[in-house]
Amino acid sequence: MINVVLLGSGNVAVHLAKAFVHAKDINFIQRYSRSKHNEEFFDKTVPATHKISEIKSADIYIIAVSDDAISDFSKHLKLYKGLVVHTSGSVPLSTLQCKANKGVFYPLQSFSIEQKVNIENVPFALETEDPKDFDLLLKFAKSISKNVYKINSSQREKLHIAAVFANNFTNQMFKLANDICKENNFSFDLLKPLINETAAKIQSLDPAKAQTGPAKRNDQKIIEKHLSQLSGEQKEIYKLISKSIIDTFKN
Amino acid sequence: MINVVLLGSGNVAVHLAKAFVHAKDINFIQRYSRSKHNEEFFDKTVPATHKISEIKSADIYIIAVSDDAISDFSKHLKLYKGLVVHTSGSVPLSTLQCKANKGVFYPLQSFSIEQKVNIENVPFALETEDPKDFDLLLKFAKSISKNVYKINSSQREKLHIAAVFANNFTNQMFKLANDICKENNFSFDLLKPLINETAAKIQSLDPAKAQTGPAKRNDQKIIEKHLSQLSGEQKEIYKLISKSIIDTFKN
Repeated sequence: MINVVLLGSGNVAVHLAKAFVHAKDINFIQRYSRSKHNEEFFDKTVPATHKISEIKSADIYIIAVSDDAISDFSKHLKLYKGLVVHTSGSVPLSTLQCKANKGVFYPLQSFSIEQKVNIENVPFALETEDPKDFDLLLKFAKSISKNVYKINSSQREKLHIAAVFANNFTNQMFKLANDICKENNFSFDLLKPLINETAAKIQSLDPAKAQTGPAKRNDQKIIEKHLSQLSGEQKEIYKLISKSIIDTFKN
Repeated sequence: MINVVLLGSGNVAVHLAKAFVHAKDINFIQRYSRSKHNEEFFDKTVPATHKISEIKSADIYIIAVSDDAISDFSKHLKLYKGLVVHTSGSVPLSTLQCKANKGVFYPLQSFSIEQKVNIENVPFALETEDPKDFDLLLKFAKSISKNVYKINSSQREKLHIAAVFANNFTNQMFKLANDICKENNFSFDLLKPLINETAAKIQSLDPAKAQTGPAKRNDQKIIEKHLSQLSGEQKEIYKLISKSIIDTFKN
């Protein structure tokens, strides 16, 4: 059994806590949070504290606080032994200010309180400063997820950027499409099966191979017609992404 | 029973043909194609011809040819009666050059030969020049799909633009993310659950409400850090879409 203490009470902490409670190789001995934020989403059977001085000894400490707070928070763990990991995709391992061994335990998923997440399918990007700690973190991660990867700090930075494209920017395309639906009085529901299909396709096809549409065909007649009906930000984005698609198929 | 003739042999024609064969209210009397293109994907039991002069009389003629060919092709149907519809999202109804009644039967899906499509879930945008024909086209569409919408020509143009954002541009975000994965030697598989989740979220949440990430938080520190690691097209797109997200949450 691996003894773990979870620190933080945001969306990531809530979803990790649920997974820890159910994992058979994990002994979820305590969780710490500064405030009562999200208290209702945590399992009542797990001991909780709001006092840093009461944090128990564990094999692994998971710091699931906001990126900006990681450094300061890790100072409070200065005297603890064991492995201290943060869960951020964009903070280097070296940000951790503790004497304990350091690592990263980064779940590649966009967590919101409302949405149910199947943690088994969430990929985790793992890194440890000392290679000797890697097996422990690997065993720990495998006890909650089937998708576990060794990713170094430099790769993790790029992975976070790739995730911004694949998740945030994709979602913004949905938002822009939704705006066009609203402006023209038809339902965004019309586009939902297409969106499902678009995501489903690249589960097995290379994204470039899955591409279709006017820009892929370099169909300037349609592209010009669309641009003539757009203005401002919508037009600028249409132009730039169409150029990116055209260039993809030029080479 | 509605008698239908399908004209064309591209991806859309292949998927429609499959649906027509299985629909109980449709009598799929013939298909026409200029060449033997995609011949292997069509059901052998449906009579086929390569000669325009052999096209049979029907209640509905579905022109599923490329956008540029619709006008010329429809001229061949000059002497036919019944309802002639095209399947394009970006061609006006008036492009049809025939004496028969005209309409549009636009499936909102990105069809590729490789991918299996559940046609029942594909939304169809319907329009007829003569309102009297609408019920026939509606009945026809409902016999293969559960998602049928009345959309006029002006709305359909905007719908096609919205679909470009929701499908082609989204897919290009996946392609750019895949590039970053390849450039840094980690697997695009890491991002696939995140992509599934992103598409799943907006099936029930407004896309703006589903947004997360550095641009939503207007986290300039992370945005600047990401930009410093990108160049060329990737940098330009990162900048523009981040600005679009920031502006979304400013208002």
